Amino acid sequence: MPRSIRERAPPLLTDLYQFTMAYAYWRAGRHQEPAVFELFFRDNPFGGGFSLFAGLHDCLLFLRSFRFTDEDVEFLRSVLPPATDPAFFQFLRGLDCSGVTLRSVPEGTVVFARVPLMEVAGPLAVVQLLETSLLCLVNYASLVCSNAARFRLAAGPRRKLLEMGLRRAQGPDGGLTASRYTHIGGFDLTSNVQAGFLFGIPVAGTMAHSYVTSFTSLEEVWPQTLVAVSGDPDPVDIISLTKGWLSRVCELLGAEPGKIREGELAAFLSYAISYPQNFLPVIDSYSVGCSGLLNFCAVALALCELGYRPVGVRLDSGDLCRQSVDVRRVFRLCSEHFSISAFDSLIIVGTNNISEQSMAELNKKENQIDVVGVGTHLVTCTKQPSLGCVYKLVEVRGRPRMKISEDPQKSTVPGRKSVYRLLDADGHPFLDLACLAVESPPEAGVSLRCFPLGCDDSPVSVTPAQATCLRQDVFTKGQVRRDRLTT
Amino acid sequence: MPRSIRERAPPLLTDLYQFTMAYAYWRAGRHQEPAVFELFFRDNPFGGGFSLFAGLHDCLLFLRSFRFTDEDVEFLRSVLPPATDPAFFQFLRGLDCSGVTLRSVPEGTVVFARVPLMEVAGPLAVVQLLETSLLCLVNYASLVCSNAARFRLAAGPRRKLLEMGLRRAQGPDGGLTASRYTHIGGFDLTSNVQAGFLFGIPVAGTMAHSYVTSFTSLEEVWPQTLVAVSGDPDPVDIISLTKGWLSRVCELLGAEPGKIREGELAAFLSYAISYPQNFLPVIDSYSVGCSGLLNFCAVALALCELGYRPVGVRLDSGDLCRQSVDVRRVFRLCSEHFSISAFDSLIIVGTNNISEQSMAELNKKENQIDVVGVGTHLVTCTKQPSLGCVYKLVEVRGRPRMKISEDPQKSTVPGRKSVYRLLDADGHPFLDLACLAVESPPEAGVSLRCFPLGCDDSPVSVTPAQATCLRQDVFTKGQVRRDRLTT
Repeated sequence: MPRSIRERAPPLLTDLYQFTMAYAYWRAGRHQEPAVFELFFRDNPFGGGFSLFAGLHDCLLFLRSFRFTDEDVEFLRSVLPPATDPAFFQFLRGLDCSGVTLRSVPEGTVVFARVPLMEVAGPLAVVQLLETSLLCLVNYASLVCSNAARFRLAAGPRRKLLEMGLRRAQGPDGGLTASRYTHIGGFDLTSNVQAGFLFGIPVAGTMAHSYVTSFTSLEEVWPQTLVAVSGDPDPVDIISLTKGWLSRVCELLGAEPGKIREGELAAFLSYAISYPQNFLPVIDSYSVGCSGLLNFCAVALALCELGYRPVGVRLDSGDLCRQSVDVRRVFRLCSEHFSISAFDSLIIVGTNNISEQSMAELNKKENQIDVVGVGTHLVTCTKQPSLGCVYKLVEVRGRPRMKISEDPQKSTVPGRKSVYRLLDADGHPFLDLACLAVESPPEAGVSLRCFPLGCDDSPVSVTPAQATCLRQDVFTKGQVRRDRLTT
Repeated sequence: MPRSIRERAPPLLTDLYQFTMAYAYWRAGRHQEPAVFELFFRDNPFGGGFSLFAGLHDCLLFLRSFRFTDEDVEFLRSVLPPATDPAFFQFLRGLDCSGVTLRSVPEGTVVFARVPLMEVAGPLAVVQLLETSLLCLVNYASLVCSNAARFRLAAGPRRKLLEMGLRRAQGPDGGLTASRYTHIGGFDLTSNVQAGFLFGIPVAGTMAHSYVTSFTSLEEVWPQTLVAVSGDPDPVDIISLTKGWLSRVCELLGAEPGKIREGELAAFLSYAISYPQNFLPVIDSYSVGCSGLLNFCAVALALCELGYRPVGVRLDSGDLCRQSVDVRRVFRLCSEHFSISAFDSLIIVGTNNISEQSMAELNKKENQIDVVGVGTHLVTCTKQPSLGCVYKLVEVRGRPRMKISEDPQKSTVPGRKSVYRLLDADGHPFLDLACLAVESPPEAGVSLRCFPLGCDDSPVSVTPAQATCLRQDVFTKGQVRRDRLTT
């Protein structure tokens, strides 16, 4: 077990009351009693109709490595009441998840409120100790994965989506979790290099405004030459070449050369010389129309003349839709006027505090944005920053357990359950059915009566064409059952 | 350097564009140019008038351990364009922060929008590479610390505040960061054991509803005896003793014994036998008035008879204020009727999805809550889940740099600055003054003209009685200057 995995969710990363309860169970000789907890959420997030379930992989790693070190136990001895029997700490020292079984919905499944997503069975004291860590690993992962899916639905299937929220996440690990689970939720790319390293997610990114503003004049460009892709091995003076193109672009567009920022041109040139096949600058450090777009076209045309293919531009402020339309028009003009077909396939990246709502609005308005980068609203889930999964005891020693609360919503449904997804004749799921584990499973073509949650108490009859088990045994007696731990 | 520290914020935990820019700087021979970045936020969080600055400790750990491994560099080679000069990877392999200087506001300082909180100076390529990681480490830490301070202000100075948000945070590290920085922001206690272990924050917690609902009958209580604190060494039958007290409590309060949950009584007894000096159960698993409170009083009175001091109760649902008043009234009745003075000092803990607003409302209503536990709204900062610190280039090679944006708010103030906090004759701060580093500092008793941010352009004159530097040199040439890295 690599140390880093234990470091992520060590067994002390939990609420103190798990230990005080574990001690009381142990003291009463109840710690080995077979118990079953269920993990579920009470309301679909974001006021929507579904959630994605995520975080299972991390839960499996956590269960597999769940073990207390001497140091952990010594710390617990220092915080639990002095009257705690020393033999309890010996018991903790020997604990692991070899008696634990986890049934779970697969990673990335579409799920609904109040359906038991995970069932954790095992010795009472152990499964109690797991509560906070499992909730912590599932809650945010599922929330951000669902949020990503909503962005994907708002964006439509065509557009590429880039996650870029690391700097606004809840610390390093919040950022990594966001990158990982937004990818499962439907994002194509991440800016987070560590997420690429650990999880193989494609990474993307080119330059920030600071790069552009760090240049003041063309004298800072070095080297000042570039070799053409094929043919002549002699380096070409790229600065002169670009200056020529800049004049022609200004003439074509009727732009004022006096408003063009030399520092920005220097920045673009310097980047293009470093990465002639990957030229995609941010063009709004000063003014898109008066400077950034003209500088881009000049450098990109020079690159094309040397046989390279520039990639596109990034817009990071203002009205992205309007600007993208203007930019695309200029690209088409250049393509036609200079007969440079590479300008027809340039891409436009838009990044400017995009929310699910602005993504949906963007989809309705005329625009030419090919890739959307999303940060803050994606990783912090502004619309609803927590999912609220809970972990409730449903059975002890084979007997159903229930909590009755002053808030009726907080009461639990007792007993160990089976969960089935019912499909219609076209193979479309239409109902998730939770019934007691001891009840017989639904049968294809056979009508059954069920009580829809959240409606009044009158039953409805449904006839599934097919019924599948929604959950799988993924961890049995200390072993991961399915080969999910590849990273 | 312990591996875990590097693991928390490894140098790959950043946006890809930092590396593409670093390469372009390196390729142009500009990577060693002296550059200065500033870190600040544009608006005070939560629509309020201030923020607390936090995360410095983590930034110092990050800077101190900033170094690429062979594995890191190999991964970068695989994601940067194939044309990247191999010598660049050699350069990365040798990089560290020995050329970096960090001036920063101290951890936990009250700060305001647009004041440069950190100044990061060093070789252009290196200080550019640090951007995302520093933002990630400061943004959430400052946000949650400020949020905690707002809860503290809403709660008033008397009440104890318990942070219990781990299960709703952005993963394990989000939860740890929350525990750590809410403590700096004014919380007294955390439920997070790992936060106690790592940072020495006092931990608290007793039992969940699952503990209560896991019991069904008094037969599950074991052992069934308890020894009195002093005097007789013979164990007392605590079940009989408690049953006697329960009858007397029911009689006193006119309660129906038939509505009392035996399982709940068993749970309380079992816990009290395990921790007779730390008895603080959650009393709303079924019904506070009909069961939980009566069971608590009976067990607590039995404990008192044996010379122990019960601690109090936790309420976790419903109208906390009203219930706390009812509970306190019953405590007083018991104290008077049974002459048990320990019942006068019982504490009432309230936990039920507390927000800053409900905390403020709670403060206005009659209530008897001594400790408030806060989870979701605290750690996820529901009201505004991101702070939005940015990192902007202000100087390269001694020359001021500026970004002019399509959004005027996104334009930056160029040049390296000094920041002073001006105090009045009573020693109260009244203005934070940012001026160019080359300008002379404000002098005590000397009037100066300044331009308030966010107002129109007309200057105001102020005369400080005292002026202090708001920032300190905390990291110079690879070394942490102040001894902050004790954990």
